[in-house]
This record gives sequence, C-alpha cells and structure tokens, in this order.
Amino acid sequence: MNQKAIGVFDSGIGGLTVYQALKKKMPQEKVVYLGDTARLPYGTKSAETIIRYSEDNAFFLMGKKVKIIVIACNSSSSYALPHLQDKLDIPVIGVINPGAEAAVRGNSKIIGIIGTTATINSGTYEKTIAALNPEMDIVSQACPLFVPLVEEGWLDHQVTRMVIGEYLLPLKKKGIEKLVLGCTHYPVLKKAISGVIGEEIELIDSARTTTEKVFSILTSLGWMRNSGKRSQDEFYATDFPERFQKIGEIFLRRKLVKVQAVSF
Amino acid sequence: MNQKAIGVFDSGIGGLTVYQALKKKMPQEKVVYLGDTARLPYGTKSAETIIRYSEDNAFFLMGKKVKIIVIACNSSSSYALPHLQDKLDIPVIGVINPGAEAAVRGNSKIIGIIGTTATINSGTYEKTIAALNPEMDIVSQACPLFVPLVEEGWLDHQVTRMVIGEYLLPLKKKGIEKLVLGCTHYPVLKKAISGVIGEEIELIDSARTTTEKVFSILTSLGWMRNSGKRSQDEFYATDFPERFQKIGEIFLRRKLVKVQAVSF
Repeated sequence: MNQKAIGVFDSGIGGLTVYQALKKKMPQEKVVYLGDTARLPYGTKSAETIIRYSEDNAFFLMGKKVKIIVIACNSSSSYALPHLQDKLDIPVIGVINPGAEAAVRGNSKIIGIIGTTATINSGTYEKTIAALNPEMDIVSQACPLFVPLVEEGWLDHQVTRMVIGEYLLPLKKKGIEKLVLGCTHYPVLKKAISGVIGEEIELIDSARTTTEKVFSILTSLGWMRNSGKRSQDEFYATDFPERFQKIGEIFLRRKLVKVQAVSF
Repeated sequence: MNQKAIGVFDSGIGGLTVYQALKKKMPQEKVVYLGDTARLPYGTKSAETIIRYSEDNAFFLMGKKVKIIVIACNSSSSYALPHLQDKLDIPVIGVINPGAEAAVRGNSKIIGIIGTTATINSGTYEKTIAALNPEMDIVSQACPLFVPLVEEGWLDHQVTRMVIGEYLLPLKKKGIEKLVLGCTHYPVLKKAISGVIGEEIELIDSARTTTEKVFSILTSLGWMRNSGKRSQDEFYATDFPERFQKIGEIFLRRKLVKVQAVSF
C-alpha cells in the first residue's frame, strides 16, 4: 500500500486547497487529483445527483490504484460519504467530520458555519457537531457568491469585502467565536474574511483539518510512503483542463503541471 | 403543425426571460421548457461538452412533439446551433443572431457585448455582427458574476451595482451606444444596468429579439396556433425542480406551476 497514491476528488478546483495542505504535510506522498469540471458545481444539485457523480469520481480514482480517497468537496461529503464508505474497500475521508471535530475542540460555545447552498441545506455540519457536543450553539449561512468571486480572482477586492460583510457580519453580531469554512474554495478568502470580521474569530480551514485526519489514518495503518523522493502528482479534469489550470494557479500560487482531460 | 408546442431549452433558468417574451407576444402558443439544471452552467464548459448536452436537450424536446426549438442559452447558441440545425428537421433558433441583427440596426458605430466566459471567448457575437456590418466597432466583456448575483436575488443591491460598474464602466468610457445582453439571465438586471451606465445606452435584450424571430418564422410558415384558448405550458428540469421553481419565480415575478424532474 505504501507506494500507492492518495486519491482526491472535488466537483472542480476548490479541492486544490486540500491538495496543497496534503502536500505541505506529506510532501513525499503522490496525489492523484480529479476535478469533475464538466458537471460542477455540485453545490446547487440534489442529493441523488451528487451521489451518482461522486461514485463516478471514486471509481475513476480506484482505477488509478489509490490507497485512500479524500472527498475534497463539502457538498459531496455531505451526501455521498457513507455511500462511498460502504461501496469501497479502502478508507474514504470527507471534509465535514474533520472540520466539525476542530469546531468543538476548546471552549467556544457559538460556532458559525458557512458553505454552498447544498452544504448548508443538508444540515450535515449541524448534525455532526451536535453529535459531538449537543451544547454547542450553531449559526449557519449559505454564501453562494464566494465561489464565483474566487474563480474571478477577486481575492482582494472591494466587492468581495462587501459580500463578505453582507453574509458574515450578522454571524459576528450573534457572537460566533469560530467560523467553519465549509467549502474548499473558501480558504483562499481567509485573509479577506478575517479583514472584515476581525482576527479574533478563529477560521477553521477544513483543508488543514482533513489533512491531519489523512495523516493519522495513514500513520496508524502503516501506509505512509517512506521513499524520500518526491513523486509526480497527476491532475485530471472532466472538462476544460485549460480553465482548471488557469484557476488552479490562482489557488496554488504556482504553475500547475499539465492537467489531463478525462470523460466518463 | 399549428397545434404543436414551441420547445425552449436552456442550461437552467435564464431562458425563462425568453419564455416570458414568447408568451407576451404569442399568449395562445403552448411552450415546453427544459432547463438542464443537473449540468448547468454551460458558460464555463468546452465546445464539445456544450454540443453534447444541447443535443440531449433537443432530443428530449423532439420527444414532446414541438414544431420549433429555441435555444434560449447563449453558450449553447454559440456552439451548438449549426449542429442542431443540421441534425433536426424542424426550425432551430438561437439567441445570438437576433441580438446581432438588432445591434447593427440604426446608426450606432460602437457596440458593447456582454455574456458568460464561454460566450465571450467563442467570439460568436463579434463574428455574427462583423458579417452583418464589417464597419462596426465591438467591445466585449465577460461578466461571470452576473448570473450568481441574479440567482441570489440581489437585483437591487449595492454589491450588484458595484459589480456592474466594475464590468461596464470601462465599456461606457469606450463610447458604446448599444449594449447586447448576451446571456439570458441579464434582462433581469436591465434596470440596475441602466441605473449604473445611464439610460442613453440602449440595452439589447435577446429575449425580445429572439421572440420577434420566432414570431416571423411561425407566421411565414403558417404554423401559428389559431385557437384562442391558453394552453398549459410544461416545465422540466434535469435536477432540483424545487430550486428551479424558486429562482424561476424571481425571473417571472409570479408563481410557477409544477416543474417536473426528468433525467437523461
């Protein structure tokens, strides 16, 4: 198992924040990344459709002989995680649980959760957090404009700050102490968000918390890659690899190697 | 043919502006509308994918025995129109040509064109307008944030006015006299756009110009429905009919009858 890759999929590009966190923590691991750009966004689709698409993605990664699959997409983690854990005989990790666990750690009483419409409507974060700590007070807010703003590259823009204020100042007013960034696009907006709502509200970046989870699973299974040399990661997109590459470079702040087109 | 319906498809909800214009002009006609909400948006997808999806949509409408098909989606009109005209034995109308024809009418010399990234990148409006009048000066601009702003319902919102200014004031500076709204979502923003760039710039609403085209074709073929009683229109969505209904009501400013789910 050690030499096999970590498989990551997302509806598109946002999962690259998870990719980046994985590589920072485990640079020796090879990652195979699939963005289902032909069918994005998942955030506005129904549960049945999201499950069907997630299964396609996971089967593609299984074909690449991965040792673990990370669902780097909140909408897909909300709806498809138990289904995929059931279907596949390798570990499958979503981004919801690690974020929820980080949210209940410490002494905070009021937690904010933001995400796409599908993620927020699913109520998965609320349920997951309530199961961990039923005392927690939760305020949630769908932020459908954040993804297009990130993809437009308006990371430090007056419009972006105004939209952040519109969505998040009401949460600040309600006294949230932590804010779960429940969409893999959002870590790119961290600086702008803290600029508007203040540094005192802790931002929970599920890219980081999910990476901790993957690290601990691979460690405890003894599946960590031990070779010191860095491997060539693979990137696949179901449509428009050029666009994936262009926006991917906004996310990673570096050149992306060739993105390959696949279809299924 | 007379009693058959007009088929309209779009990647989602935007085509309802075309639906509304059709019904205003020809209230006696029955319309069958399909929104491919499972796979929206088309605006960020490649030509091959858009053609494939458009074909699926057109075949669905053919199954509903329509007499004419209106592609109420600019991205799809840009890439799939000749292909569908070739494949089908009924008239197929896109939204690009009627908009381009309205743009060259009169004495204007400088025309602005706005649309999704795919529509603008395709250069279809430029080519179509240049073929009609090679003297015309064209300035184009992709406005990827307009669709999510409309779907958020922020039609009269400071953020929306600021985004409009960001995208369109540079076009005003260049002296545009007309502005082609090259996306079927945009007519919903007409008032806000004129508020920012001034009433003196004429907005060309392709929902209206396309309706004129459909009217003239049905009239000249003698295919207009002559029964005076209004028929029950049919609405289909490939995913999330509830969401279609909710946002559809923002577009139409009235209750929408039942939207049926289909998949293919």
